[in-house]
Amino acid sequence: MSAAVPPREPSSQESPDAGVSRRGLLLGAAAGGLVAGVATGFAGGRAVAAQPTASSGDVVRLDNAVSFYGDAEQAGIRTPPQRHCVFMTFDLTTSSRTELQTLLATWSAASAQLMRGATIGQVEPSQPSAIGDDTGEAVDLDPASLTVTIGLGPRVFGDEYGLAAQKPPLLRELSQLPSEALDPSLTGGDLSVQACADDPQVAYHAVRSLARIGKKLGAASTRWTVTGFGRASAGKGQSTPRNLMGFKDGTRNIVDDADFSQFVFTGDGPDWQRDGSYQVVRKIQMRIENWDTDRVSDQNRVFGRHKLSGAPLTGTVESDTPDFSKTDASGAPVIDPTAHIRLAAHENNNGLKILRRGYNYTDGINQYGFLDAGLLFISYQKDPAQFETLQRRLGSSDALNEYISHIGSGIFFVPSAARSGTYLAQGAFA
Amino acid sequence: MSAAVPPREPSSQESPDAGVSRRGLLLGAAAGGLVAGVATGFAGGRAVAAQPTASSGDVVRLDNAVSFYGDAEQAGIRTPPQRHCVFMTFDLTTSSRTELQTLLATWSAASAQLMRGATIGQVEPSQPSAIGDDTGEAVDLDPASLTVTIGLGPRVFGDEYGLAAQKPPLLRELSQLPSEALDPSLTGGDLSVQACADDPQVAYHAVRSLARIGKKLGAASTRWTVTGFGRASAGKGQSTPRNLMGFKDGTRNIVDDADFSQFVFTGDGPDWQRDGSYQVVRKIQMRIENWDTDRVSDQNRVFGRHKLSGAPLTGTVESDTPDFSKTDASGAPVIDPTAHIRLAAHENNNGLKILRRGYNYTDGINQYGFLDAGLLFISYQKDPAQFETLQRRLGSSDALNEYISHIGSGIFFVPSAARSGTYLAQGAFA
Repeated sequence: MSAAVPPREPSSQESPDAGVSRRGLLLGAAAGGLVAGVATGFAGGRAVAAQPTASSGDVVRLDNAVSFYGDAEQAGIRTPPQRHCVFMTFDLTTSSRTELQTLLATWSAASAQLMRGATIGQVEPSQPSAIGDDTGEAVDLDPASLTVTIGLGPRVFGDEYGLAAQKPPLLRELSQLPSEALDPSLTGGDLSVQACADDPQVAYHAVRSLARIGKKLGAASTRWTVTGFGRASAGKGQSTPRNLMGFKDGTRNIVDDADFSQFVFTGDGPDWQRDGSYQVVRKIQMRIENWDTDRVSDQNRVFGRHKLSGAPLTGTVESDTPDFSKTDASGAPVIDPTAHIRLAAHENNNGLKILRRGYNYTDGINQYGFLDAGLLFISYQKDPAQFETLQRRLGSSDALNEYISHIGSGIFFVPSAARSGTYLAQGAFA
Repeated sequence: MSAAVPPREPSSQESPDAGVSRRGLLLGAAAGGLVAGVATGFAGGRAVAAQPTASSGDVVRLDNAVSFYGDAEQAGIRTPPQRHCVFMTFDLTTSSRTELQTLLATWSAASAQLMRGATIGQVEPSQPSAIGDDTGEAVDLDPASLTVTIGLGPRVFGDEYGLAAQKPPLLRELSQLPSEALDPSLTGGDLSVQACADDPQVAYHAVRSLARIGKKLGAASTRWTVTGFGRASAGKGQSTPRNLMGFKDGTRNIVDDADFSQFVFTGDGPDWQRDGSYQVVRKIQMRIENWDTDRVSDQNRVFGRHKLSGAPLTGTVESDTPDFSKTDASGAPVIDPTAHIRLAAHENNNGLKILRRGYNYTDGINQYGFLDAGLLFISYQKDPAQFETLQRRLGSSDALNEYISHIGSGIFFVPSAARSGTYLAQGAFA
């Protein structure tokens, strides 16, 4: 009655170019001035990550592993969107600067392990570890291109942690925007974790692991979360996926390096900020059953594109540039004045662009018996005002507003990637 | 700024062995005595499915398409579990026998289309269709091994529809079972739809499409739903996936044809029942954060297996048969008396087995700030008493009960597959 295939035992091979060793991570963190914190957090210096053993699920640098450490931006921004995403925000539950450092150092080390497809601690340790054992559900799975992207909310840079002088210059709460219906239980957070992977179990394991560590350290508790699938924004070399309104979403997303420099990454400030970006997340509910009763000709008018091909109403293929000045025989614009693509287009916003990373979500059936679904929308920009400018315009006039509500929101600064041997935002604590 | 890859246009090729044509479906349904119903439901005989066009997303018999029609059981039971599943139940909102027939005929025709990777109606029709247009979100995606499996609840065989004499002999509400904490809003239903696929967008599109048709026909409304991923039960030739407690789940699942005949399919009654099976679905909530604080040695005791390898505590590899009589040096049983595998084992239940098809689910964060997650458990058996017998035992004694709650439940009879040109359970209306 047993499965015909023997259980896959994870490999313990470690390739020579695997980068910094796990012991190295800890030394790096200690070198950064974290000795006391590490000693507390890791029970007398015991490493977060177990030494590799044949049975710990340690797998290194498979083809679909993405590196956590780097000299530029964190992975998960420029990385072409993977198929699944778990986004979670956290409240800080400590007022200790050192404990915040320990949390960031531990999350960094753990994220690096997770992205390599390794476990956080062992699954069956001989003794329980100080930060708890790996929960195990991803142990047989490969890294699935997991990226863990960590952001810091405005409160991190309040007086509490002595980081006010380090605040990224443009980090602040978002302005109130038109057509918002924000649910406080889906809004805010001191820290964000975006875990994207091609396997939902891998993405969930990553977020669950960081949540577990946050609680174990007494430093952070879960606040709100959205789980998405299927992508709704294209990355370089990807064909454009569809949102749950059935439209291609992400046709004119940022893919060129020049645009990343101009619109996405801050490009200045201290090292730990220079390759950073401001992350805005919105949970956008779609009234898909209402939408489904609308004629497709009207849906096309709302978006300004053909549903099937994705072509602008003024063109024939998806890649055609919309002609916003084109009129029909009666003199009316072919792309409606309130069409989504007209309002969002950089041509109509002084060249403004943002990087979008969207995932479809479903929340089952709501209290009215309707399918509850929508879009997990995450954007990256060098200034939160980029998002506000576009959303103010969309929220005021977009024909789509009849069918959507922004019900959740958060803003975070995503610092530069940690260099090997350091942890995220370590420079802020120098 | 457009994606580098041109949009994939679906192929309109139809291979010679694609089976019944869409027109054939309708004629078949009509031949089955449904003329009036079809005429009502399809607006004067207009087919559910559009004629294939190059732009309708019609793709036929790709390698990963499963056939809806067949001479034996419905797909989605013996089919090795795909990576994603959307399970939804429905309430009948009509008391008309003919409208129930129309619903089953329309759902059958639609499911056959969906499993072939085609749309339900066109995405951009020249005129809106009577049952609505395809919602479009899966139009570029391949069939992803989609299976749509449809079940009939007890109320279908009440007096209302004149089907009391056709009731599958063992169909009834489940008995109350120990350790249940059923939420009425997650329980019951007159019809069930299990859509499993290797792409979550394809599975969601299928269920959404059937829900849309049910409402459009005024025949069925959504009741409750669970969306699962990652699988927790193995099929033939699959290695065993893990549940969100980190344990392999499904090691001793049914995979042999002889067991399918003995334990899963009814094997008697009229044609439309003979290859049928009783489907039990449970939404099983797991207190994963409590679980995570438990020592792995205790977790192993609760399951009776090693977490990492999946081997029984009396063995060394997953495929080892558990030795329930083995004792340790102190004379205590190595596999605890309340261990999950001891209570569930066929050796300890007069040989009883059920087919399990499990998926992990996550519901975000609950009102207490804990991760809300669990298992979508679907079992198939030739008699609902098989499930009750096992669950009565597990619910009474299982060491796992401290960490789980059965919060949702349903029971359905899954009729034999529809043969080409007919619809599901058509024989019941003869």
